[in-house]
Amino acid sequence: MTGIGTVLDGFGAGDLFQILRDGAPRTRSELATLTGFSRSTIASRVDELSAAGLLVPVRDSVSTGGRPPARIALNNRARLAAAADFGATHATVAIVDLTGEPLIKESARRDIASGPEESLSWLVTTTERLLTRIGRESGDLLAVGIGIPGPVEHATGRPTSPPIMPGWDGYDVPSRIRERYDVPVLVDNDVNVMALGEHSKAWAEADDMIFVKVSTGIGAGIITDGRLRRGADGSAGDIGHIAIPSGAGVICRCGNTGCLEAVAATPAIASRLAGEGLEIQDSSDLVAAGRSGDLRAMNAIRDAGRDIGQVLNMCVSIVNPSVIVVGGALSAANELLLAGMREVVYSRSMPLATQNLAIAPSRIGPDAGVIGAGIMAIEYALSPGTKDSQTTSSEDFERRPAKV
Amino acid sequence: MTGIGTVLDGFGAGDLFQILRDGAPRTRSELATLTGFSRSTIASRVDELSAAGLLVPVRDSVSTGGRPPARIALNNRARLAAAADFGATHATVAIVDLTGEPLIKESARRDIASGPEESLSWLVTTTERLLTRIGRESGDLLAVGIGIPGPVEHATGRPTSPPIMPGWDGYDVPSRIRERYDVPVLVDNDVNVMALGEHSKAWAEADDMIFVKVSTGIGAGIITDGRLRRGADGSAGDIGHIAIPSGAGVICRCGNTGCLEAVAATPAIASRLAGEGLEIQDSSDLVAAGRSGDLRAMNAIRDAGRDIGQVLNMCVSIVNPSVIVVGGALSAANELLLAGMREVVYSRSMPLATQNLAIAPSRIGPDAGVIGAGIMAIEYALSPGTKDSQTTSSEDFERRPAKV
Repeated sequence: MTGIGTVLDGFGAGDLFQILRDGAPRTRSELATLTGFSRSTIASRVDELSAAGLLVPVRDSVSTGGRPPARIALNNRARLAAAADFGATHATVAIVDLTGEPLIKESARRDIASGPEESLSWLVTTTERLLTRIGRESGDLLAVGIGIPGPVEHATGRPTSPPIMPGWDGYDVPSRIRERYDVPVLVDNDVNVMALGEHSKAWAEADDMIFVKVSTGIGAGIITDGRLRRGADGSAGDIGHIAIPSGAGVICRCGNTGCLEAVAATPAIASRLAGEGLEIQDSSDLVAAGRSGDLRAMNAIRDAGRDIGQVLNMCVSIVNPSVIVVGGALSAANELLLAGMREVVYSRSMPLATQNLAIAPSRIGPDAGVIGAGIMAIEYALSPGTKDSQTTSSEDFERRPAKV
Repeated sequence: MTGIGTVLDGFGAGDLFQILRDGAPRTRSELATLTGFSRSTIASRVDELSAAGLLVPVRDSVSTGGRPPARIALNNRARLAAAADFGATHATVAIVDLTGEPLIKESARRDIASGPEESLSWLVTTTERLLTRIGRESGDLLAVGIGIPGPVEHATGRPTSPPIMPGWDGYDVPSRIRERYDVPVLVDNDVNVMALGEHSKAWAEADDMIFVKVSTGIGAGIITDGRLRRGADGSAGDIGHIAIPSGAGVICRCGNTGCLEAVAATPAIASRLAGEGLEIQDSSDLVAAGRSGDLRAMNAIRDAGRDIGQVLNMCVSIVNPSVIVVGGALSAANELLLAGMREVVYSRSMPLATQNLAIAPSRIGPDAGVIGAGIMAIEYALSPGTKDSQTTSSEDFERRPAKV
């Protein structure tokens, strides 16, 4: 564990990691081309990172005569991250490798309203148990990443007036975790970590992407020029409370009227369907009813897609993404939901912004949250400028100019 | 002119320029701290750039004993850029220094509908005249930047179906300019170049900013994490055609109904005021009427502010900026317009997103366009990776990871 801080000082480590994260081995010469650094600079960085165990040489299986250039790759399991994804009524902890891939995970039904002490204690004991089961120890952890179902001040890792999380407002999540693990702890809202997971693992070629989560709430993660954008206060992508015409007069839990979430999220749909004699408990109930061919459920899901489409339309005009990825529990309804979205987005948006636009279901599914939380933490820990191993703040994360 | 391509190859030049662009002199040690590079790397980069004449030593006027560390600054006028801002009915050409500051400029009433040949010939002859008047020559030009009043495919510099620019659709603007000047030519829409100019010169501390232009049309420039974001097709910020409730039934020139621009831009306001017996020719007419105390004009401007505020509200939810900067000809109405915007934005948006949000008038005014066009071109020319002086494409501009 010691030495990493020094090795990663200065320029170089962060974006070498970005390049090698796909697992493909590369020669020093290829890395020089990809980063723009001189070959001598690359050679010295590679030597340092290899000495720290983070890079390993890869032997070519077939030699065609002559000495092939040595190739190097990320040593995926040299260090690990603990990653947690807290929802309103469930939670998952995973141990992920340096590429964000879960090595082991555990999910449980848990109420986020049980408060931060109980939730984070569970996170720690589950992490210990999972590490033991794969024969690793807490000293192997490079960082911890956490997604929670509410707004977070990303600079401090503290929840900010989260509506469904009593006891969490302003709670210092990183400090609590760091009582046990002396590593960087990064916290963000659940939608942002899902967006990071989806983008990193399945849509890396899409520089401009909107990830929208549809479930008990509705939110979006905004990716432009290849990076998640959190905005000035960490609330970028908070689209659940944009007013839409079909919401006129509907009161939202936020106090405003007409919010998208008050019309198109699962609780709103369930309450309308109850009036039609169909009882729905949660998103998977609703998806099951729609898939079983219940016309009331099918129409309700398609209508929700149309309502969300109105807001996605605005997102398209403002952000101009190449793809909108739809995740969250209600997205399991797939084409029922997406058809409504597509109907509205393609009928209304300007040609230039929609000529190459795809609207697609999540490729990663339920694991997107823990994968994204892990990648968020690892990227921070391996980025240049992370010089103080005492870092609890992610203030500079994503704000620093990217270094090569 | 020769040698620059070589000097700027590889890493280093681009972000040294970003740091030194404010004109303040810095020591090598300060530059090492700011960039994260080693002192030896900085020293060699500074030597190279000094040899090319782009950096100069700065002598301290007061010595307090001992040998003070040598400071260096950007040699602002070592090279120049030609910058043009074309509007619907007017155009400006300026010669700007390496910080984007205009050294000389010329404006004219010109119809963009006269077509690209005539417009760009005027750009070239005006550039020649201005260079001569300040005793410089075309060989001093490092780059050319152009803003035009319509959508642009930023990767190629070609206008894309611009509604008010007959003859320009798909026209290869960079090639036409490069017949005369063998330097990079960057083209973008007028709102994006204004956003760049405002941000670089007056709001550099605001990492997340929305610039909105209100005039004959309405559009926005989106800045997140300190950089202008153009989106997948260059149409990010195209907010003029987002539908708003008060536009219900109003037909827009784009073919849709209810667009913001069809309700709140100057032509829409003028047509409503004509029904009230007030004849308005253009935005400055309208501003003058409002300032003179005509109640019809005052109310109309405030209503436009409210309508635009509805869309800004969505922008705030999606982007979470720390400031919205309002420019364009109608923004000269200042508080009349801003009051309507503030009324809607602060009454509706979520607390987390608006607690630190400012809505402010442009600080740069009419020159923002040429300044931004100049900075866009200079940043590209001085960025690492611009290895081919034949570059006509800005494909990689803003997409490359920033290099230090």
